[in-house]
Amino acid sequence: MKIAAVQFCPIFGEVEANKAKIENYCTSIEADIIVFPELAFTGYDFLNKEEVRKYAVDFKSDLIQHFQNISTKTDKIFVIGFAESDTDKLYNSAAILCPNSNYSDVYRKVHLFYKERFCFDQTDKGYFVIDYKEKNLKLGTLICYDWRFPEATRTVAIKGADVVVCPSNLVTKVWHISTPSRALENKVYFVVANRIGTENRNGVDLEFNGGSAIYSYNGSAMQIAAKDGEEVIISEIFPEETRKKSFNEINDIFADRRPELYM
Amino acid sequence: MKIAAVQFCPIFGEVEANKAKIENYCTSIEADIIVFPELAFTGYDFLNKEEVRKYAVDFKSDLIQHFQNISTKTDKIFVIGFAESDTDKLYNSAAILCPNSNYSDVYRKVHLFYKERFCFDQTDKGYFVIDYKEKNLKLGTLICYDWRFPEATRTVAIKGADVVVCPSNLVTKVWHISTPSRALENKVYFVVANRIGTENRNGVDLEFNGGSAIYSYNGSAMQIAAKDGEEVIISEIFPEETRKKSFNEINDIFADRRPELYM
Repeated sequence: MKIAAVQFCPIFGEVEANKAKIENYCTSIEADIIVFPELAFTGYDFLNKEEVRKYAVDFKSDLIQHFQNISTKTDKIFVIGFAESDTDKLYNSAAILCPNSNYSDVYRKVHLFYKERFCFDQTDKGYFVIDYKEKNLKLGTLICYDWRFPEATRTVAIKGADVVVCPSNLVTKVWHISTPSRALENKVYFVVANRIGTENRNGVDLEFNGGSAIYSYNGSAMQIAAKDGEEVIISEIFPEETRKKSFNEINDIFADRRPELYM
Repeated sequence: MKIAAVQFCPIFGEVEANKAKIENYCTSIEADIIVFPELAFTGYDFLNKEEVRKYAVDFKSDLIQHFQNISTKTDKIFVIGFAESDTDKLYNSAAILCPNSNYSDVYRKVHLFYKERFCFDQTDKGYFVIDYKEKNLKLGTLICYDWRFPEATRTVAIKGADVVVCPSNLVTKVWHISTPSRALENKVYFVVANRIGTENRNGVDLEFNGGSAIYSYNGSAMQIAAKDGEEVIISEIFPEETRKKSFNEINDIFADRRPELYM
């Protein structure tokens, strides 16, 4: 099985252009799973909820269902960050689109970064894993700043994830310190699709730092993209290899946990 | 304030020789905190509980209280791994000896590695932090395999630790992937004192891999020792700098946690 992370520069507010670019990647990349950045259809730096509302779409919208159809047609899983509206709520979300649409779902970013608090609502939906039996894959999803909280990856790993994907719009580089550990400490593949480019919506440049990465479950980097430049990274993965959490006849990294002693 | 990690080779069963070596380090190293490896008085590779019982001592024993006295006399904090007996129980422990002995305490390894299960009892004491006001220091202690569980460092960090020390007898090298993240994700100093040398107690060589390390709270390595060779690493630290967990006017790495959504 192959997984790809697409590093590109969404243009703020140019939904049709971004959509065309994403669609082109969806049809041309030969991989079973293709991960795109956070807020890939719209760009990132919204000023307030009123502005988000102009662009936000429902999971059942034509835009998302268009990619659902491509997923079914091409037999590929897509994870794409998007601004989601759900009745009166707005979420910083990722659409997880599976060829069999019964498995498709939406993850809503749990840990909101900085001024996202003024643009999106806080969710209580939390973390989940898609047990996609057709591909023998258990897929967990985070978004961006979630990387910083070991509890986030831990939660999807305990729920059974083999592969954790993280659509991102990261503006720092420090996350490369923690993401290999997320893979190692949970024995999961960990995949970050980060965007590139600069947005200037308030007279202040916001620069995104690329460096998209695919880590194996032993914490080693299989692919790291450059910090700038459009780039697709692809690795072959073996999800079922992550499932045995024991590493000798006594120790097992999940069974050895002592939750009663943790805060 | 200065912290030191001592990387040396305890000789199995040679308590007097190991004690003399440790004492020499305690008196000669100029640092406020000196961290020694796990099971530093005895060596590591016990065969069973009967053997541990020959060497294990109480926290109030002459051996430990001898180092308590040196701590008080020299105004230095020592963290020293030792085989502890407490009534009929045996623990893989670390004595945390403070100049003011009212603060001194013993940490018992929560996550036992491999055949330690046959040599030591499981503890329910758990993690704690010594709030040593005389030095304006909040000190948390782990031992060795605890590194692998993000919950361990998280727990002492949430309990207020500025500095997390980890006496170790590590036989792999993969922990260097996670220890910088432990520092970064909790904004704490993280200090590993690992041993070196080889033990052969069953006809099988057990090689310890040194690489003792001091990480700053931004995840950067301040000092990394060689993988072999006796070595003392020392860094200047500023414990109070770790206490502000916010990094902009909105985000705070502890306040942003969503424990209700974690497993």
